[in-house]
Amino acid sequence: MTLKFAVLGAGRIGKVHARAIAANPDASLAAVADSAVEAAEALANTHGCAVSTIDEIEADNTIDAVIICTPTSTHADLIERFAKAGKAIFCEKPVDLSLARVKACLGVVKASGAKLMVGFNRRFDPHFRAVRQAIDDGAIGDVEMVQIVSRDPGAPPVSYIQTSGGILRDMTIHDFDMARFLLREEPTHVFATASVLVDAEIGKAGDFDSVSVILMTESGKHCSISNSRRAAYGYDQRIEAHGSNGAVRAENQRPVSIEVAGRLGYTRPPLHDFFMTRYLDAYAAEIAAFVDVIRNDAAPSPSGEDGLIALALADAALKSIKEGRLVAVSEVL
Amino acid sequence: MTLKFAVLGAGRIGKVHARAIAANPDASLAAVADSAVEAAEALANTHGCAVSTIDEIEADNTIDAVIICTPTSTHADLIERFAKAGKAIFCEKPVDLSLARVKACLGVVKASGAKLMVGFNRRFDPHFRAVRQAIDDGAIGDVEMVQIVSRDPGAPPVSYIQTSGGILRDMTIHDFDMARFLLREEPTHVFATASVLVDAEIGKAGDFDSVSVILMTESGKHCSISNSRRAAYGYDQRIEAHGSNGAVRAENQRPVSIEVAGRLGYTRPPLHDFFMTRYLDAYAAEIAAFVDVIRNDAAPSPSGEDGLIALALADAALKSIKEGRLVAVSEVL
Amino acid sequence: MTLKFAVLGAGRIGKVHARAIAANPDASLAAVADSAVEAAEALANTHGCAVSTIDEIEADNTIDAVIICTPTSTHADLIERFAKAGKAIFCEKPVDLSLARVKACLGVVKASGAKLMVGFNRRFDPHFRAVRQAIDDGAIGDVEMVQIVSRDPGAPPVSYIQTSGGILRDMTIHDFDMARFLLREEPTHVFATASVLVDAEIGKAGDFDSVSVILMTESGKHCSISNSRRAAYGYDQRIEAHGSNGAVRAENQRPVSIEVAGRLGYTRPPLHDFFMTRYLDAYAAEIAAFVDVIRNDAAPSPSGEDGLIALALADAALKSIKEGRLVAVSEVL
Amino acid sequence: MTLKFAVLGAGRIGKVHARAIAANPDASLAAVADSAVEAAEALANTHGCAVSTIDEIEADNTIDAVIICTPTSTHADLIERFAKAGKAIFCEKPVDLSLARVKACLGVVKASGAKLMVGFNRRFDPHFRAVRQAIDDGAIGDVEMVQIVSRDPGAPPVSYIQTSGGILRDMTIHDFDMARFLLREEPTHVFATASVLVDAEIGKAGDFDSVSVILMTESGKHCSISNSRRAAYGYDQRIEAHGSNGAVRAENQRPVSIEVAGRLGYTRPPLHDFFMTRYLDAYAAEIAAFVDVIRNDAAPSPSGEDGLIALALADAALKSIKEGRLVAVSEVL
Repeated sequence: MTLKFAVLGAGRIGKVHARAIAANPDASLAAVADSAVEAAEALANTHGCAVSTIDEIEADNTIDAVIICTPTSTHADLIERFAKAGKAIFCEKPVDLSLARVKACLGVVKASGAKLMVGFNRRFDPHFRAVRQAIDDGAIGDVEMVQIVSRDPGAPPVSYIQTSGGILRDMTIHDFDMARFLLREEPTHVFATASVLVDAEIGKAGDFDSVSVILMTESGKHCSISNSRRAAYGYDQRIEAHGSNGAVRAENQRPVSIEVAGRLGYTRPPLHDFFMTRYLDAYAAEIAAFVDVIRNDAAPSPSGEDGLIALALADAALKSIKEGRLVAVSEVL
Repeated sequence: MTLKFAVLGAGRIGKVHARAIAANPDASLAAVADSAVEAAEALANTHGCAVSTIDEIEADNTIDAVIICTPTSTHADLIERFAKAGKAIFCEKPVDLSLARVKACLGVVKASGAKLMVGFNRRFDPHFRAVRQAIDDGAIGDVEMVQIVSRDPGAPPVSYIQTSGGILRDMTIHDFDMARFLLREEPTHVFATASVLVDAEIGKAGDFDSVSVILMTESGKHCSISNSRRAAYGYDQRIEAHGSNGAVRAENQRPVSIEVAGRLGYTRPPLHDFFMTRYLDAYAAEIAAFVDVIRNDAAPSPSGEDGLIALALADAALKSIKEGRLVAVSEVL
Repeated sequence: MTLKFAVLGAGRIGKVHARAIAANPDASLAAVADSAVEAAEALANTHGCAVSTIDEIEADNTIDAVIICTPTSTHADLIERFAKAGKAIFCEKPVDLSLARVKACLGVVKASGAKLMVGFNRRFDPHFRAVRQAIDDGAIGDVEMVQIVSRDPGAPPVSYIQTSGGILRDMTIHDFDMARFLLREEPTHVFATASVLVDAEIGKAGDFDSVSVILMTESGKHCSISNSRRAAYGYDQRIEAHGSNGAVRAENQRPVSIEVAGRLGYTRPPLHDFFMTRYLDAYAAEIAAFVDVIRNDAAPSPSGEDGLIALALADAALKSIKEGRLVAVSEVL
Repeated sequence: MTLKFAVLGAGRIGKVHARAIAANPDASLAAVADSAVEAAEALANTHGCAVSTIDEIEADNTIDAVIICTPTSTHADLIERFAKAGKAIFCEKPVDLSLARVKACLGVVKASGAKLMVGFNRRFDPHFRAVRQAIDDGAIGDVEMVQIVSRDPGAPPVSYIQTSGGILRDMTIHDFDMARFLLREEPTHVFATASVLVDAEIGKAGDFDSVSVILMTESGKHCSISNSRRAAYGYDQRIEAHGSNGAVRAENQRPVSIEVAGRLGYTRPPLHDFFMTRYLDAYAAEIAAFVDVIRNDAAPSPSGEDGLIALALADAALKSIKEGRLVAVSEVL
């Protein structure tokens, strides 16, 4: 039997998940809800499913799972509501911008016994997954130092910045999760520094567009993260891990990989220019993993707890920027 | 309105096309036919369509197009039949192993006014397409020399060899088409040499497993082709074109592109091990192009004529191998 | 007229410079001095020059320049002595492990009018130089973020560690200089963190073997540095700079660049395993630059001041490690 | 004791060998001869050696070896003369443009017992050497197919073409030698085709500028060679060998290996633009090998016989072009 899904929120990321569900042989898209009814209808038409309200989805016993793609401020409430309704829940990151609210929400989820998976899509990228697999296989010995470069092609509008929680909770949070995915030991301390180099409006909105972070673990492993809201050549996403016996890395991906040689040298095309094309396979694998959680009772991964810790790292990084010092994660969590 | 397709032949390549049709928003799979009814049913179940006979499909006025994936020996007859039935036809290469039969078949198609597209999937690979686009854009000036390497991961069973028409008509034929796609001028002469290095059984069956070819055009452009039925490291598919101002090339593709560094060096994973995964995107784009042919009256490309010429190049190459000399294409066509 | 050089110190790095002098058409090696007379004789024999004492070299008016390759503790004294003797001076980094001593020494040099160049060889690597040239040419717009990875193939013996001044003054100091070379704006603040992951003996000696650093400039540019005394795959030396319009990077170099493909994938050989082979061209270019300083009155670069600032960055980094906070360079300089 | 060398011919390639000798610790340059006395003097001055006549060098018993870099038409006579004089001989390729003359010359050398090495410098390139070493080590199993691409950055003047013996004896001859070096089995048959695509003047002079060759061995191994006198992006020199268990290749070399990323993509600099910089290390290793031949009685490799066979392959290729057929090497040798 295929599992029946409802997608809450018919925006950009809602569409991505709807498509992944439609393409998954074990899942079917039963309903789409959005307070903007036209958006919901457009998405429902594309996939031949119903437009519903959140109330209707909550009440529909044939729906197995919900995909929460609504604005961040609604995430925690919806998670709690659908946890109580007995549905499996996939929620886009972050669960909430407040650590306290996240903790409370996870408490409700735990009490309900509901399955909650959080959307850190990069863990499902086949290349990054292969990096982790190489580490698990012992290909590089014990991991010692991890380096992550993550640069967006361009800065989002300031209106987005204002509701995003800032670059650390919106963008770096993916790298915090990736760091944990690769280090295989919890970061205990964070140092971060940030500046505004790309767009002065971002600074006026109280945020940064350029961030450097160092994470440290108990045993002395390091992870450095470099973020920018600017990359003329495309969506720059690289990870590398160094261990006692070697290193492994995943380089950037491009949609077309040709090389033209001429008088001025050898040129390859730019990278993907958008996270949705870059991580197309990852989104499909993410839904497949969620299906596996529901069907085979696999442990949700990334879990709500993973979402909580990544947010705590973001908060600790913000504190570090403000205070110009190494901050213990325990100070914020 | 979506176009309705029938797939004839539910084998390996039939499945590939059925999936591409199912995923195409402008196409729907209406029926599958195969003399092996179980295979037809399995494929029909996967995509929720009907199992039909060829007679039923021929008579069904709601079906717009057929995809011919049956054994080669049936291709020309089916093309003629469905051309007369007024359906658009996509036929897997080759149209037939006999040049005379292909010519006759194309005559029937022409008389009927039917649209016929032939399945040289590599023209639709995004990387190879980008190579051609770079040439069209003048990035390398006038094309002068083209080099194609095409090596299969392993040899097929001798039973396959026996009905395939031999390596030149089965495997090199793709490279002949690619050479024409890139040279943009017809090859007029062919030299080929071949040997059995991989599997002595192939030699006993009268075929070769290792082939080198040189094509020449009227104005003196060259294309060299290197084929083998053996490549331990995966499905080796490379093209490069050299022109008056530079060169362009497409290197191999791999499913996962990480690199592990250790005491013995830097290692990347093997290439794709199968043409279906290597050319997954190409098959989807091929169906999209066929939809465009039907909907927007675009000229079919590759056309039946393209299929004919590629087969003629294969026949000329075989003649060259036997006679140890440069053979004019006009000797066989 | 070729310039006459004396090399002080016939150890590993003395040999490198002696060879570079011998190969430079504008320079000749006149004398070698070392308190270990056998070492001096061996090197003198190789290049057909005299064995001298430091006193003799100081008194020899035909000698234009000295290359100081003696132990660090003797550098400042020798610089002062030969500055007063009116010779051009090339000194291996660092000038001294004490900032105060370096300052005093540079005062003496300044008063003498002598030319002093400090041995940060990496500035002369053709690949790194090309990175800087691309920045100077405006290829990436304004530099915003720089990333440096520098990993040694293996840890030195603890005896070396004890006189080296520690990893920051010995190894990271090269990266501090490279950061300044690429940022083109002075770092004003430093954060560093360090641990012992490679060799516990290094920790017992009071040093670290794994270091992560972030530098910040007044205008908000960042540089991250990642150092380790371990890299199974060879001498890992990479730099990249990101600017407002793009990025430029220099990847690792290997002595032999072939690729072997087989069942397990594609393998390239390890990197250089030693700084002397990795930077062979750099050492030659460094001596050529020094010749240019003497002959054409070019400004010495890297200068004594460059040596001073790099050391100050190392001291600030050490202070940051101890105090777990961002340290202003002005606190130590 | 260092060996004493004389260089005959102070042109472009004579300078390369003179420099390699000067840098070799086991060799010294004693004399330079050239009928153009100024050229001889300039080169002698650079290296601080004598200007001599060929007669003087022949008579000088302290000279161990000669490096013949004079015009091709003088090679065979000089080889015979110095063979009789008891000197070791290194001769630039080709020994002569006539197979008969080469055979006669090798007969004289054999009778004299002199050591003769022929200048196929590419065998000494560290990357190509590593390809051969990988084959010898069994890394790819039995070699089956070899592919060589060799393209010059630009066409030489027609005056050069006229005395060169044509592209096959001048340029392709290097690839014939490389094919033998990698195939490890003698080619028995040759097919070649050629055209004029780059410079019509070359055609008027009776030569070609674009060549494609296929070599076959007794056991069915193939080698394809692609030559052009045009490559806008630099000196294109690639080899790859495919075997029963895998493949090995050497890609192009560039003087500076950075990569700049921007809006239009990722660009690496052009390749070396000249054979002397591309093969700088090869020329040094070649002289070292010749020193080894003299000192340690190593077998000269490439030998005079290697020069003979490469020339025979060129002649067979020319015959193939003229007659449009596969030519047996035995037809010309």
